[in-house]
Parts: sequence; structure tokens; C-alpha cells
Amino acid sequence: MKHVYFDNAATTQMRDEVINSITDVMKNNFGNPSSSHSFGRSSKSLIEKSRKTIAGFLNVSASEIIFTSGGTEADNLVLKSAVKDLNVKHIITSKIEHHAVLHTICDLQKDYHISVSYIRVDSNGVIDFSQLESLLKTEEKTLVSLMHINNEIGNILDIERVANVCKTNNALFHTDAVQSIGHYNLDLKEIPVDFLAGAAHKFHGPKGIGFAFIRKNSLLKPIVVGGEQERGLRAGTESVHNIVGLEKAMELAYNNLDKETLYIKDLKAYFIDKIKSNIPNATFNGHSADNVKSTYTLVNVCLPVSSKKAAMLLFQLDLKGVACSKGSACQSGSSQSSHVLSEILNDDELQKPSLRFSFSIYNTKDEIDYVIEVLKEFID
Amino acid sequence: MKHVYFDNAATTQMRDEVINSITDVMKNNFGNPSSSHSFGRSSKSLIEKSRKTIAGFLNVSASEIIFTSGGTEADNLVLKSAVKDLNVKHIITSKIEHHAVLHTICDLQKDYHISVSYIRVDSNGVIDFSQLESLLKTEEKTLVSLMHINNEIGNILDIERVANVCKTNNALFHTDAVQSIGHYNLDLKEIPVDFLAGAAHKFHGPKGIGFAFIRKNSLLKPIVVGGEQERGLRAGTESVHNIVGLEKAMELAYNNLDKETLYIKDLKAYFIDKIKSNIPNATFNGHSADNVKSTYTLVNVCLPVSSKKAAMLLFQLDLKGVACSKGSACQSGSSQSSHVLSEILNDDELQKPSLRFSFSIYNTKDEIDYVIEVLKEFID
Repeated sequence: MKHVYFDNAATTQMRDEVINSITDVMKNNFGNPSSSHSFGRSSKSLIEKSRKTIAGFLNVSASEIIFTSGGTEADNLVLKSAVKDLNVKHIITSKIEHHAVLHTICDLQKDYHISVSYIRVDSNGVIDFSQLESLLKTEEKTLVSLMHINNEIGNILDIERVANVCKTNNALFHTDAVQSIGHYNLDLKEIPVDFLAGAAHKFHGPKGIGFAFIRKNSLLKPIVVGGEQERGLRAGTESVHNIVGLEKAMELAYNNLDKETLYIKDLKAYFIDKIKSNIPNATFNGHSADNVKSTYTLVNVCLPVSSKKAAMLLFQLDLKGVACSKGSACQSGSSQSSHVLSEILNDDELQKPSLRFSFSIYNTKDEIDYVIEVLKEFID
Repeated sequence: MKHVYFDNAATTQMRDEVINSITDVMKNNFGNPSSSHSFGRSSKSLIEKSRKTIAGFLNVSASEIIFTSGGTEADNLVLKSAVKDLNVKHIITSKIEHHAVLHTICDLQKDYHISVSYIRVDSNGVIDFSQLESLLKTEEKTLVSLMHINNEIGNILDIERVANVCKTNNALFHTDAVQSIGHYNLDLKEIPVDFLAGAAHKFHGPKGIGFAFIRKNSLLKPIVVGGEQERGLRAGTESVHNIVGLEKAMELAYNNLDKETLYIKDLKAYFIDKIKSNIPNATFNGHSADNVKSTYTLVNVCLPVSSKKAAMLLFQLDLKGVACSKGSACQSGSSQSSHVLSEILNDDELQKPSLRFSFSIYNTKDEIDYVIEVLKEFID
């Protein structure tokens, strides 16, 4: 059977070079980085080299990169410590953020009685900048948390603009950049974000490792305490092999960025063209059909499929070996709905099934042709 | 140069079979376990199989095993949620616990104004059971956190006795079992602990993965929130390859336990004999020279070395390729002192250097002979 993996926004296939780096570390560097002997120092030097490499690609200091178990933990670390230790009393966010951000903020609201403002988003998922600016006119210590690239609809937020407006208003700015790290160049000297979260497995690195960028002198404190690892910001023996895998994935992503971006951009354009010509009544959610306002890595399509057939859609795609992600709030048989699409689509649109297709360097146009043929079978 | 790794309580060399399992998953199973398609289900089934294997060795239900990034996170999860969500008002612990426990409890004391009682330990590091029993006579909701095997001096705590006394007194019992999982059989149907923490890298598994055993219906809540992974108890995409590595390490540890225990026990006995015959004035910290009261994996020796020479001891050992761990509070040139030895040794003993040597299946008697020769050079 054909297997087509179009769910690269969920996770990605690891690069062979990344696997080799990880395997090499597992075989040859088992020391605990906290040990002072040669075995320990050898592991320590690996993670410090990784930290430096990653910091280099983001144009920040190595000391500003804190390794975590992934993007979710990085979001939790930043948001929780900002409230607990930096005395943030007000968080501004949107309802289309990742659950790692939204659920953390909900918990903080309950536990610390902070106020939370949700910025309006329009039917394309674009945040209301003027509302953001007016919300920032407050005496309360405020943190803004808005993701760089939306994981469901692909919208790109102008984080430089948000960062600057936050700076002007003495607010802190955290961005979940899990969908952009490894896919877009980010110069954090130019973009004055205070905090950022990234995860290796979204760009062909290993699962279980990510990082928080924490701007110097921000006075955050750990949410996992114990040993003094990660400059006291994250306790626990470091996952040395995973850290080196993250480094390698980042290195390969950025060293090949232009070439690979072009390749994937071309796939997305081809996919959109094929959808338009074969399923003319399909619509695109958010700005996902716009090649400037949306990431080149994903597209979110609302399909003109009857509710009867819609119920079987993902199941049938899976049977045909096609892996993609549901993006509809009313996917039958599923208890999980998309909180993102629920925010931006109207009731009629929500009745139709939406699917997210997300691409990588390992995909081909042949695969797209196959998926379009499979999709056509469902169209009334 | 000869390289002798006698620091297996800090971390261990990974087994080849574990490395192969991890590499295999990295190559062949990259799906996100939360995805409903075949790629996702394949990863999901791997982690559920791992969960079942691990639960089997501990004689518990698979649903009671929650994967974390390691032992430290597992300790944090249990202790923090017990206070925050289970309304624990009083924690009983000892001053010779791991920092993952002690620092977490300190934070909880500050943030939640709980009361903390430290049980007395004698000069061998043995806790005062009668004091524990009297501390448990309280109306306050109480949690006891005591480690199974002390990571510095190797003392084994009778956790079955502690668990039963806690149960009788309606207190919760958490044990950091990071030094015992993979080294000792634990039947958690027989030992009524409520919570337990383990870490793969202490028994030839990968770094960056561990687990919390959380007894059914305990109502703990996550400290890292976001997605619904790990039955809602730990958000974040699972480190599938590391989880499978943990499973493999556990499987190999327990399937070879009798044979490997004998081998390492023999090494420890040989080391102690050699120390006694070559450095007769050396003493053993805690119960580490007792083959019943102490783990077979480590020994902590206080050496009759002048303070002048002591300053260079670890440095010289490292130069000779010997990796072990300092265990003395007064290690010159180091800002870190051992909080464990400080609790149990007198001032005279603390003036002398103490070293922890910890063994594994990869060590040999030849290595011990070499280390003894190196140590003898320091003896006055």
C-alpha cells in the first residue's frame, strides 16, 4: 500500500544525519554532564556546543537557550514563571493559540487570579492589532503570548511588530515558535521577543527535546527543580543525545533553508492548484492559501463533502495510506474538536470537514496527485 | 590511557540492545502518538507496549505508569501536585534526600506554607522510625517522601515498612526509587507506596526519560499542561524512541537481574576487601560496606588523606582516567558540598576526603586493582 505522510505539522520524519548523530552520542558519550571527570566533561562540552550552535542561528547568546523536554514544557516554563516570579498580573493572548499556552494560562488564571484578555481574531484568523495596542494601555504588569505560526491554519504573525508594540508599552512578549523554528530565519537581535519556545521534532529532529529562549536578565525561575542544570532554570540530567540531535536538526534545517523552502513552497502551490482545479468548491481556512501570510509548510482545506461522507473521510484516507490531520470542529465520531476553526469559521463552514495537509522535504508531487485522486472520491 | 568508569550511580553506559532499539524507532516510527492515522497509531502502540512492560515488572497497571523527562520531573510532579491538588499540608522527609525532592519541598514550603518535618538520621544515615511514627500522629493531611536507596551512601530503606506505617496513619507515601529501579525487584502490589519515581539512565537506558508510578485514583494533576498525553497527567509529544529505550533497558535489567546482581555484588565485595587490605585506615560512609543494608552498586569511602593531598585527589584520579564522584563536604576548590555527608559525619570525618565508587556490569576486577593502586599513592 502507498503511504503518504502529509502531517508534518504534527511531527516529522527524522533526518538520517540526525539519527546518526544521536546514535553516535549514545555509543560514545554516556557521561553525566554534571560530573566533573572526563566522561562528564565530554558530555557537558557536547551540550554546550549544541547550545552555542542553536543560539547562533537565532543570533542570541548561548546562555539564553534553555533545553527543555519540548515546546510544551518551554511554554509552561515561561508562562508559569512569568506569573509566579515576575509578578505578571495580566496576560494577553488569543483563542487560537496552542493548548500548551491556552491551558497553562487557564491554570494560572485559577491559581493566581490574574486577568486574561483574548484578542479578537477575524474570520481569517488575523489578530486585531488595534485591540492589542489598546489592551496594552494598562498599569498592570502584562505579558503577551501569541504564536508565530498557527499550527492549524498556518497564519504567520508579524512578531517583530508585536514585540515592538510590547516593548513600547513595557509588556513582556512570549511567542510559541514551534512551527517556525527550523522553517524560518529568526534574528532575535532584531525581533525583541522576551521569550520563545521551539521543539526539535517539528523540523526532523528527535521527540522529547526542545528549548526556551529566555532573554538575559529576565529573572525567570525553574518549574522543575532539583539539580543546578541549565543554569538553574531546568533541573534533571540532560538528554545529551537528544540535545545533539536537536543541534544537528537545526544545523541541517538552516544550512539548507533556502533550497528546502523553495522545494516545499512548490509542493504547497502545486497542492493548492490541484485542489482548485479538481475540487473547485473547496475553500482554504485562515490565510493558508496565501503564500505570504501563511507558512509554506501547511494548508488547511474545507471540503465540499456531505456530512454523511464526511464522517468516513479521515478513516478512508487512512485506509488509503494518507496521513493528514483533521481540522474540523464537527468531525463525526471524535470528541476532539478544533478550537482554532471554531473561532474563525461560521456554522455552515463548520458543518463541512476541514483537513490540514502539511508538507516536508520528504514529500513529492506524485504523492499530491495520489491524495487528490483519493479526495476526489469523496466529492459530491 | 586507561579509562575506568566507577560513577554508575551518576549515570550508566547504555546497553547496545537499548541503542539498537532506539535507533530502530527513530528510523521506522516517527508518527506523533496523538495522531489518529497509521503513522500515529504505530507510535502510540509502541509507547503503550512500553508502559505495559514497565508496569509488568513492578506488578502494577499500565495506567499507573506516567512517562516523564526523568526522575527529577517525576519527583516534582508527585510532590507539587500532592500539595496543590490533594491538599497535603505536611510533608515528612529527611535531609539526606535527593535535591529533586528537597528543593521541591523547600519551594512548596515557601509557596503553599505547608509544614515540613525532617526525620532524624543517625551517623549511618538510618532514619528514626519511631520519630516517623510519632510525626504521623497528626490530623493534617501528610505525605512522606523518603528515597528507597540513597544515591550517595547506598543505604536501603525498608520502603515496605514505611509504606505500611503511612497507610496505617492515612498518610501518602512517595519514594524516589531512581537508584533501585532496574537494580532491585519491586512488587508494588506488596509494597503499598502511593507514588514512585524512576529514571532510565541509571540502569543503562537513555537520558531524558523516566516515569512516575502514580497509584490509581490518586487524583494527581499535571505540572506540565497542554495536550492530553499520558492520560492528561503530562502534556507534550512523547519521546517515543526514549520510551522504547527505557522499556528495553528495564527488560534487560530485570531479565538478567540475578546474574548481574551477583556479578556487581562480587565487584563491590572485592573493592571493599582491597580497600581494607591496602588502606586499612579508610572508613565506609553510611552502611555502604554492609552488603544487606546497602545497595550492591556503590560504596562511599572516607580516605585517610591529608587535606593538602585531598585537594588534588579528584583531579589526580581524573588524570589517571578514573571517574568517580566526590562525596565529601570539604572538597577543596569546589563550591558544592555533599548535603548527605554533612548530615551524618562528624567534623573530623568531614575533614577527610570521601569518594563514591559505583559499579556496573561493564566494570572488572582489573579496573578495581588499577584504582586501588592509584588511591594508594595518596595515602600518607
